[in-house]
Amino acid sequence: MTLDAEPLDRAACQAMDAADPLASLRDRFDLPEGLIYLDGNSLGAMPKDAAARAHDVVTREWGTGLIKSWNSAGWFDLPVRLGDKLAPLIGAAPGEVVVCDSTSQNLFKVLSAAVALRPDRRVLILEGSNFPTNNYIAEGVAAATGGRVEVRLCEKDEIAEAIDEDTIAVAITHVHYKSGHVHDMAAITARAHAAGALSIWDLCHSAGAMPVDLNGAGVDFAVGCTYKYLNGGPGSPAFLFAARRHQGQALQPVTGWWGHAAPFAFEPGYRPQQGIRQYLIGTQQILSMALAEVGLDIHLSADMGAIRTKSIALTDLFIRLVEQRCAGHGFTLASPRAAEARGSQVSFAHADGYPIMRALIAAGVVGDFRAPDTVRFGFTPLYVRFVDVWDAVDRLVAIMDGGIWKLPEHQVRDAVT
Amino acid sequence: MTLDAEPLDRAACQAMDAADPLASLRDRFDLPEGLIYLDGNSLGAMPKDAAARAHDVVTREWGTGLIKSWNSAGWFDLPVRLGDKLAPLIGAAPGEVVVCDSTSQNLFKVLSAAVALRPDRRVLILEGSNFPTNNYIAEGVAAATGGRVEVRLCEKDEIAEAIDEDTIAVAITHVHYKSGHVHDMAAITARAHAAGALSIWDLCHSAGAMPVDLNGAGVDFAVGCTYKYLNGGPGSPAFLFAARRHQGQALQPVTGWWGHAAPFAFEPGYRPQQGIRQYLIGTQQILSMALAEVGLDIHLSADMGAIRTKSIALTDLFIRLVEQRCAGHGFTLASPRAAEARGSQVSFAHADGYPIMRALIAAGVVGDFRAPDTVRFGFTPLYVRFVDVWDAVDRLVAIMDGGIWKLPEHQVRDAVT
Repeated sequence: MTLDAEPLDRAACQAMDAADPLASLRDRFDLPEGLIYLDGNSLGAMPKDAAARAHDVVTREWGTGLIKSWNSAGWFDLPVRLGDKLAPLIGAAPGEVVVCDSTSQNLFKVLSAAVALRPDRRVLILEGSNFPTNNYIAEGVAAATGGRVEVRLCEKDEIAEAIDEDTIAVAITHVHYKSGHVHDMAAITARAHAAGALSIWDLCHSAGAMPVDLNGAGVDFAVGCTYKYLNGGPGSPAFLFAARRHQGQALQPVTGWWGHAAPFAFEPGYRPQQGIRQYLIGTQQILSMALAEVGLDIHLSADMGAIRTKSIALTDLFIRLVEQRCAGHGFTLASPRAAEARGSQVSFAHADGYPIMRALIAAGVVGDFRAPDTVRFGFTPLYVRFVDVWDAVDRLVAIMDGGIWKLPEHQVRDAVT
Repeated sequence: MTLDAEPLDRAACQAMDAADPLASLRDRFDLPEGLIYLDGNSLGAMPKDAAARAHDVVTREWGTGLIKSWNSAGWFDLPVRLGDKLAPLIGAAPGEVVVCDSTSQNLFKVLSAAVALRPDRRVLILEGSNFPTNNYIAEGVAAATGGRVEVRLCEKDEIAEAIDEDTIAVAITHVHYKSGHVHDMAAITARAHAAGALSIWDLCHSAGAMPVDLNGAGVDFAVGCTYKYLNGGPGSPAFLFAARRHQGQALQPVTGWWGHAAPFAFEPGYRPQQGIRQYLIGTQQILSMALAEVGLDIHLSADMGAIRTKSIALTDLFIRLVEQRCAGHGFTLASPRAAEARGSQVSFAHADGYPIMRALIAAGVVGDFRAPDTVRFGFTPLYVRFVDVWDAVDRLVAIMDGGIWKLPEHQVRDAVT
């Protein structure tokens, strides 16, 4: 997969697929015939085992097992069992991760915990251009303190300098949702700790796409979703990491019975679980959670180093082909060119990004558009092939060379097929 | 269904089933052969359509539709679409209910909203013997105010008197999870409003089991689950009601992007939705939510008045049969004897409740045990038959008369079959 040594044609891409150690994993997914799906960073594809698992959970676990499945089918322990499965993918230890709720809710919990852990400090630092819900949630956490805490939004290069003795925590998305740039988790965490601040990471765009080493970097808290690179299904539950040193207290304020030390003792007052379960609140959505396990299991059969190697090869190839074959069509790379600084996605800026993406989707290449001018493509190493990259660019070339994206919407589909 | 006029034998129960206007609804559910399921107040039974709906959501909506199903399959609007379906069952108007998250989380939102709406008051009133998570959540909301707010736990008869000018809100579960007693929603709400306090109701044990009239009573906020009498599946999402007069502000503090006025504009700051969607936080678990609709649809084909009539007849019959046929075996009714004061469940206290329930379950009658001494039976009018009540008591009589519940656990199953 050394790109520069290969002549860039479709046969070369086929040869790369033939040499790909992850190639067989594509068979674990069901992808619509002819579709090139480069949006797994928004919603991952469906594992072939998903339908059978859903059927089993509905008919056997629910329909036949009924109430006793809370124990016999292990429903009650799913959040920690899946958390333990996910842990090695993100450099966490068993008992440090739960799968539950949504990323936004989990961020609320860990930001609230951080505020509780640093009662004499005032500032939460986030990346201003990040996916907005993180910043909205931080606003809400700050507002709940009645003005004691404030949110400071920085951009990438300002973050390290912004951290000082008044910083409660720096809470950053590891891979930027739009550009795909990767933050230096270890360096920012070290900088935060040196100032007595906490380090919180959102792994939505990195978990499953690249090696993450939370404990290696000394991270305090992390959150992320399972429906992107982990292929857990639409809105599948998120996850939450709390380093073991932060467990044992009622640090997160949504103190529901699933976080109680003895949830079935029905005690009158709240006593926090001593472990990661304090970050649970109430009853989990079992069907969605069970499906998340199907995606996780595929990941556990693959080597994360091999996933990263292929991810870099796919994104390098895409950048090179677009820049060569669409030269002169006005695309500007909006992701880092250096592979080590880039997640498993590639964005290009183009003034006509919206109609171009619409035409691409009509041509069977699914990426997405992010206002005002970004076309974004995600490359999930488990099921995207090198030949898909070739074919995607091939269709993009046809759309650009033929001016198809300029046609009225209703004519685009005829033109691309 | 006038019980007193009927001779109480199995044939009489069969006659009551033959006259039951809801009888055909049982065919919409798949119940294990021979099982008498009296635990629908813990986890409702599986609708026959559930497996097909799960298959369709997984294979067509997710597998084939992929990312575009957020729009084309209506995923993004599910919380409000299902909320509007649920609204008439609880006396709410369209746009006042969302289906999302868990009951505990939703209670956190509405209690936080109440605290924000009454900044000069100090006390949240809850029922001390209620299902504990409500009280734990209230503790968390109070703790987050740094001591300004406190929780006062009362029992049923003390609540009205406890409400005063310092009360933020009274937050009560409409039907008590253990005894099944029904609180007077209209009277308590009127009392709260007279004191300038807010009225919040947890409908977990009443939604779908009896008519509820939130707007008729002038209720401010409500929450509840869909996995009990609404048969939404294990851990299916909860619901939240906010009266229209309380919408339009950022009242709940978990300010995620799904509650933003323009979630896809990716604005830097939080601007609340003007409607019920402000109570949403982040991405919903679509598979679990889609299944909740299957259960809701069955309810919408039934008349709530007929459901309540049958519920009362079932529970009256059960009380009468247990008291007659198990007389002298030590059961004491632990639910209100007056039908209008009782939900769709019946509890009996018995010193040996635990082994008795274990033997009953072995005999194919599923109820549940609540410490220290309560055996609890739920009667879902959509699928429980009068003959089931007869047969359940029949098996209870055999267990009591034969002393089967006193046998070692491993001998019980042989003894009851």
